[in-house]
Amino acid sequence: MDRNTFGNLLQLTTFGESHGPAMGAVIDGVPAGIPLKSTDLLDQMTRRRPGQSDITTDRDEDDAPTILSGVFEDKTLGTPICVVVYNEDARSKDYDPDHYRAGHADRTWDEKFGHRDYRGGGRSSGRETVSRVIGGVIAEKILPDAVSIVGFTRQIGEHRAEDIPEDLDRQRVDQHKTRCPDLEVAEAISEDLLDCKERGDSRGGIIETRIDGLPMGLGEPVFRKLKNTLADALMSIGAVVGVTIGDAPDNIAMSGFDFHDGISGSGPRAGISPAANGIQGGISNGERIRVLTYFKPASTTGDMSKSGRHDPCIVPRAIPVVESMAALVTADHFMEFQLNRSRDLTRTE
Amino acid sequence: MDRNTFGNLLQLTTFGESHGPAMGAVIDGVPAGIPLKSTDLLDQMTRRRPGQSDITTDRDEDDAPTILSGVFEDKTLGTPICVVVYNEDARSKDYDPDHYRAGHADRTWDEKFGHRDYRGGGRSSGRETVSRVIGGVIAEKILPDAVSIVGFTRQIGEHRAEDIPEDLDRQRVDQHKTRCPDLEVAEAISEDLLDCKERGDSRGGIIETRIDGLPMGLGEPVFRKLKNTLADALMSIGAVVGVTIGDAPDNIAMSGFDFHDGISGSGPRAGISPAANGIQGGISNGERIRVLTYFKPASTTGDMSKSGRHDPCIVPRAIPVVESMAALVTADHFMEFQLNRSRDLTRTE
Amino acid sequence: MDRNTFGNLLQLTTFGESHGPAMGAVIDGVPAGIPLKSTDLLDQMTRRRPGQSDITTDRDEDDAPTILSGVFEDKTLGTPICVVVYNEDARSKDYDPDHYRAGHADRTWDEKFGHRDYRGGGRSSGRETVSRVIGGVIAEKILPDAVSIVGFTRQIGEHRAEDIPEDLDRQRVDQHKTRCPDLEVAEAISEDLLDCKERGDSRGGIIETRIDGLPMGLGEPVFRKLKNTLADALMSIGAVVGVTIGDAPDNIAMSGFDFHDGISGSGPRAGISPAANGIQGGISNGERIRVLTYFKPASTTGDMSKSGRHDPCIVPRAIPVVESMAALVTADHFMEFQLNRSRDLTRTE
Amino acid sequence: MDRNTFGNLLQLTTFGESHGPAMGAVIDGVPAGIPLKSTDLLDQMTRRRPGQSDITTDRDEDDAPTILSGVFEDKTLGTPICVVVYNEDARSKDYDPDHYRAGHADRTWDEKFGHRDYRGGGRSSGRETVSRVIGGVIAEKILPDAVSIVGFTRQIGEHRAEDIPEDLDRQRVDQHKTRCPDLEVAEAISEDLLDCKERGDSRGGIIETRIDGLPMGLGEPVFRKLKNTLADALMSIGAVVGVTIGDAPDNIAMSGFDFHDGISGSGPRAGISPAANGIQGGISNGERIRVLTYFKPASTTGDMSKSGRHDPCIVPRAIPVVESMAALVTADHFMEFQLNRSRDLTRTE
Repeated sequence: MDRNTFGNLLQLTTFGESHGPAMGAVIDGVPAGIPLKSTDLLDQMTRRRPGQSDITTDRDEDDAPTILSGVFEDKTLGTPICVVVYNEDARSKDYDPDHYRAGHADRTWDEKFGHRDYRGGGRSSGRETVSRVIGGVIAEKILPDAVSIVGFTRQIGEHRAEDIPEDLDRQRVDQHKTRCPDLEVAEAISEDLLDCKERGDSRGGIIETRIDGLPMGLGEPVFRKLKNTLADALMSIGAVVGVTIGDAPDNIAMSGFDFHDGISGSGPRAGISPAANGIQGGISNGERIRVLTYFKPASTTGDMSKSGRHDPCIVPRAIPVVESMAALVTADHFMEFQLNRSRDLTRTE
Repeated sequence: MDRNTFGNLLQLTTFGESHGPAMGAVIDGVPAGIPLKSTDLLDQMTRRRPGQSDITTDRDEDDAPTILSGVFEDKTLGTPICVVVYNEDARSKDYDPDHYRAGHADRTWDEKFGHRDYRGGGRSSGRETVSRVIGGVIAEKILPDAVSIVGFTRQIGEHRAEDIPEDLDRQRVDQHKTRCPDLEVAEAISEDLLDCKERGDSRGGIIETRIDGLPMGLGEPVFRKLKNTLADALMSIGAVVGVTIGDAPDNIAMSGFDFHDGISGSGPRAGISPAANGIQGGISNGERIRVLTYFKPASTTGDMSKSGRHDPCIVPRAIPVVESMAALVTADHFMEFQLNRSRDLTRTE
Repeated sequence: MDRNTFGNLLQLTTFGESHGPAMGAVIDGVPAGIPLKSTDLLDQMTRRRPGQSDITTDRDEDDAPTILSGVFEDKTLGTPICVVVYNEDARSKDYDPDHYRAGHADRTWDEKFGHRDYRGGGRSSGRETVSRVIGGVIAEKILPDAVSIVGFTRQIGEHRAEDIPEDLDRQRVDQHKTRCPDLEVAEAISEDLLDCKERGDSRGGIIETRIDGLPMGLGEPVFRKLKNTLADALMSIGAVVGVTIGDAPDNIAMSGFDFHDGISGSGPRAGISPAANGIQGGISNGERIRVLTYFKPASTTGDMSKSGRHDPCIVPRAIPVVESMAALVTADHFMEFQLNRSRDLTRTE
Repeated sequence: MDRNTFGNLLQLTTFGESHGPAMGAVIDGVPAGIPLKSTDLLDQMTRRRPGQSDITTDRDEDDAPTILSGVFEDKTLGTPICVVVYNEDARSKDYDPDHYRAGHADRTWDEKFGHRDYRGGGRSSGRETVSRVIGGVIAEKILPDAVSIVGFTRQIGEHRAEDIPEDLDRQRVDQHKTRCPDLEVAEAISEDLLDCKERGDSRGGIIETRIDGLPMGLGEPVFRKLKNTLADALMSIGAVVGVTIGDAPDNIAMSGFDFHDGISGSGPRAGISPAANGIQGGISNGERIRVLTYFKPASTTGDMSKSGRHDPCIVPRAIPVVESMAALVTADHFMEFQLNRSRDLTRTE
């Protein structure tokens, strides 16, 4: 029964409390011989880090990852890779054990476990996601170079990006601190968030993730469809309250005639439908996959008796976390896909 | 690696192709001594059945379930329960192996598996969900009587229910063939669907599911939160393109001050937030859980070179399927919850 | 939590009580396109069948397998294959619910489950192994032709085979009804068992299984070594009380100098040791694997207040069951091995 | 697909190479509120440690465990517990990458993974078992006080203990450095091993493990019998080549009349058989469980071109490892057992 382990052929196990000795990840199932250094982890970890701009929390962590196992001479061994990040900036005196924050995990965890690390949420802290980012970076190393996974801010509060470039990479997304590629909307979001930060208010938002470059055939029937494993992965992130394939809520009201596209029959592109957003029958169709992840408004500081350190909107910093979970799912399915392909090779030999 | 198996302590394995000899389900992990007869399965199976009203497809199936194992003298044995439904109305001549239907699984399955049962979608047919309903009924028998899981039509096409009674059970939901409890909206939906059926058009929609009566404490940390296991379960249903906890898409644009509610501090209801829709930190908070499941518009008959048999909107018939997947998840978490409780008993002895 | 499911990439789920409607197996993970007919299952099922010679029980079953799913036009679909065998010769009146047979599962099952199918052991009956044989035959179809898995009677009672041909296949093993290839010892066993049958006495024994033709590299580190997955598989068979790699009990008393063989260094066969019996560091070394499975003496009829139908020694009929479990393990590891190989292909592309 | 993870409700994941930065264990599924300090781990870790007497290797490790997560204020949190042991005495210059040791994992790992940590066996080193001992100690804390798991040296080389006290605890076992409780035989073993050490020879042996104090009802049907999960666990230890329930090899030659015991019928002890060694139908019968674990002779130093550091017989130091694997299995089944019991509570409420 996996509680803190995610994945199938590729498995991420996370551990650590936000104010305990360390956060960590064990990644198992990584093939041998893949180049890996601890510095490879820094880019995405830095994108997730608190304190990276004036619209994020002030808590600063150095977050230097240490590889404890699974790597030898800067290449993976095929054995489990354990990476830890020792916790440093842990102001545990800020927290009060007898105080339940409304809408947080405090009360339900206490009810469930009886004994709780109340300091900063313990394991229910957003800091747990650092382990996911470690897993995500390693997962991406398993994927072919042709595959790219890029998340961006689609909406924060009332501001929704409309003018989004067809081609996006992480560098381009990072051009604005909001990670919204519609720069006009980005500016509006930025102003709104600075205002929120000052007033102690907060905003929810949507991250859109594009997965490009997958071959046709990823995803297994029925209970391991690409779409439900993605939903499982993304919905397991703390503040996430929804996952949709493409703009599902908008498509409900469409006529089937308008919604459905693609050509039936038997030609080379027969049966492929752009409206499917990359997934048909649970299986990748070789086109771009678009997934939207919905975040509820972050906790408001007015809501807290003791001042913690929080972002007015978690969305910009959550992008590498969403990308990481998507990468773990995609790499796992990719390994399953290779398994199928290798059977073909065997059968035709 | 579970492809056709869902769940953890309670496991549903489904098998069967829509035009093969039978559909089936193996349910493992059911405690011994629970009363079970094959007739117990009929209510929910009938609600899922095609041909039940003028707004559904004409394909009629008798769907008589046969229990092959796991039950003795009308009580469960604690061993795996296999239930099969033999396929009868299988007009396989309606289907053409060389024709890929756009937006369907046809092309991707062919690409993935090479060999495909093209008759009516084979295993990717909606008929696969009969196995899920069997599992769901049995899962509900594990749950305490106080727990109720009720799904209803929240929206179809442009018509969204607004006036929804606080108390709903399945009988009340079934008062209208659309299963929309806002009867005015239900009528509008009905008219729209009859019109769609005539024109070969189709509609998407939203099923809202209420889970009531759960104690505080269901759900495991991090990767087995109640919310992501629900998302996983519901998103694995064929036409589902989104899952949200409560009305997530509407909440994005709210101020954190408006969104967050509940009382912080240390009283008896401290930390419980109505805005959480029943799940905090991934764990049930003892209040109603509200989950929305988004269905894309069904395939349109204009889109098909050969006439199959399809519903203009799958939502009304999908309600027992959604309830069943929710029941499987809930019963699974309930067993985990009991496990925790039994540890407490042991420790205090 | 798998209770009635075995395996990883290839999974066998079994269901059925000996005197219920049917025994069955669901095999998931089988690649698409493999030729399979229900008649393919008959050879091994017949070798397991009761009533096949004068040294086995008289209970006769027809055991005709029916494929319910996963096969279309005599080829696998890549979807779960369900095979059932309907129970016929079920003389349930022979059994008394209030009578616990000593050394059987009767008492412990009753204690555990409260409600028990007492007729012939229900699910704890040896008849459960028919599902394993179905799984085993299908598993063998996944393995390359070069792989062979052959079990034979190594010992029954005091009679131990010494003169065993280097080359053995199932036909040759079946030349004697005892399935002991040392024909002189076979005759002694036969006489002993006929005498046992008359007196109601019974014998234990050892099945030796040879797995030939595996490439080097099957088995995963630490908790999925080839040796412990084989032990897990074989020890899960009802009457089995021990599993050893090669003649382990005899090797204990050897000097390390005498036991260890093979050449250290760096040549083509360097590091390979015949004493390893095919498994080094948990991984296949490309040589013959030899596994011994120890069966306790079967229940004695003097021990039963009501006459059931039992073999004086289960070993000859258990051979296809042991082969089947070995085939399931081997095929599972073979799929993992192919997965590794496919990664190599990808990396070198 | 679990490669480096063992268990079901209670899961141990191990990581670490013998000459890498650290060995480690993540234990998940441990209930909250159990007292745990890093010093609790020292007793069993010390019993496993090299260099503890003149009959073991000289390699000395300090083996100080550090708890990185899952414990707060010296009590478990119900979250994953990560414990690491940093590697110190790592003389990697003793090892030659181009040299395959016969009978070791060197060659097969190289073949399988391509890239290998050749220093001291890397992950295939016996040092990996330190992670298992960490898991075992924590597992024992989950078990009721009434349960005891005691392993001892039953045989080394030709010397087999016959005079074994009915009551044994670890202290008594440790009275002799060989951990053989038949002190006369212990002396003979000691002499033999000192002689082996001088000559570079080695011995195999048998560890007998007694599990006392379990209630009736542990073990799940068919594929999670107590006996096969024990065999799986014990056979996964490096040098183990066999596992038997009781003295299985000796029992083969017995008459069924002599072997079978216990009383059939319906009284309070009806159906319980001492010959079952504690397991009937795969389920604990409330009596002592006896499991024998067979170790092949350790590598001989004459066999190595470069002098490493090895024990003449691994058995005495392997006892805490065997106990730990048995504890993990037993605690896992105990949690399943409690789950069943809690269902009963619910049903009768």
